[in-house]
Amino acid sequence: MGDLEIRPAVPDDVPAIVAMLADDPLGAQRESPDDLAPYLTALDRVSRDPNQHLVVAVREDRVVGTLQLTIIAGLSRKGMTRSIIEGVRVHADERGSGLGTRFIEWAVEQSRREGCQLVQLTSDATRTDAHRFYERLGFTASHVGFKLPL
Amino acid sequence: MGDLEIRPAVPDDVPAIVAMLADDPLGAQRESPDDLAPYLTALDRVSRDPNQHLVVAVREDRVVGTLQLTIIAGLSRKGMTRSIIEGVRVHADERGSGLGTRFIEWAVEQSRREGCQLVQLTSDATRTDAHRFYERLGFTASHVGFKLPL
Repeated sequence: MGDLEIRPAVPDDVPAIVAMLADDPLGAQRESPDDLAPYLTALDRVSRDPNQHLVVAVREDRVVGTLQLTIIAGLSRKGMTRSIIEGVRVHADERGSGLGTRFIEWAVEQSRREGCQLVQLTSDATRTDAHRFYERLGFTASHVGFKLPL
Repeated sequence: MGDLEIRPAVPDDVPAIVAMLADDPLGAQRESPDDLAPYLTALDRVSRDPNQHLVVAVREDRVVGTLQLTIIAGLSRKGMTRSIIEGVRVHADERGSGLGTRFIEWAVEQSRREGCQLVQLTSDATRTDAHRFYERLGFTASHVGFKLPL
């Protein structure tokens, strides 16, 4: 396979990003690939926030993955800055290629460059394969993640 | 008890905030109440970010609680904006006063005002009392929270 590039997402990437978000047991019910307008609005907002990094992985001019990294300053733990990883998706053709690992390693390195001392993420309790994947990369399943839809 | 006010934290609040962060079974090992400089630096950074709300609860001119709310735009779930609650602390004298509930209700209302459709938080797996508290407020423990210290 050709070289992999990880770079900030641009509007032209949105159809491929939304297709990956929707190609997922949980995402299939949540996304609207036929109406990209809300995604383009969200990308514009994310792109103007210096603490947000919405990136795509590109191989041979094809978008094959997406990930969102948010940098959050805070007071707890001696004024520690942390990062949060959300919305990790890898194209079905790329599973097993090591892209997931490359992607999380990128997020960890970017977090270090921005002075973070903690990287965190939550994963739906049903995604047991993902849990093993994060544990292999050194993450600890130390917390319970709560959600409240509004 | 007198009226409760919830307002953005200012530098003069930092000693009281740090005292609450440290007065906690987990926080006791993580904080440095004798050196406030890193906390003041962090508050300055947080205060300049329009997507961050670090607030205190004040009763009779005394800081009795602190909470951090972060607004995060994103592409998943049709370009949904979510919020994340971190660093919730209530002064020991105020436990059982309903302040915790008022605080989370404030965060939920602020999230609605900013167009969020999801509020999320993680809680250390050992804080079982906190888990019951969040479930009573309507949160679902649907996720596993992973952390990687750098």
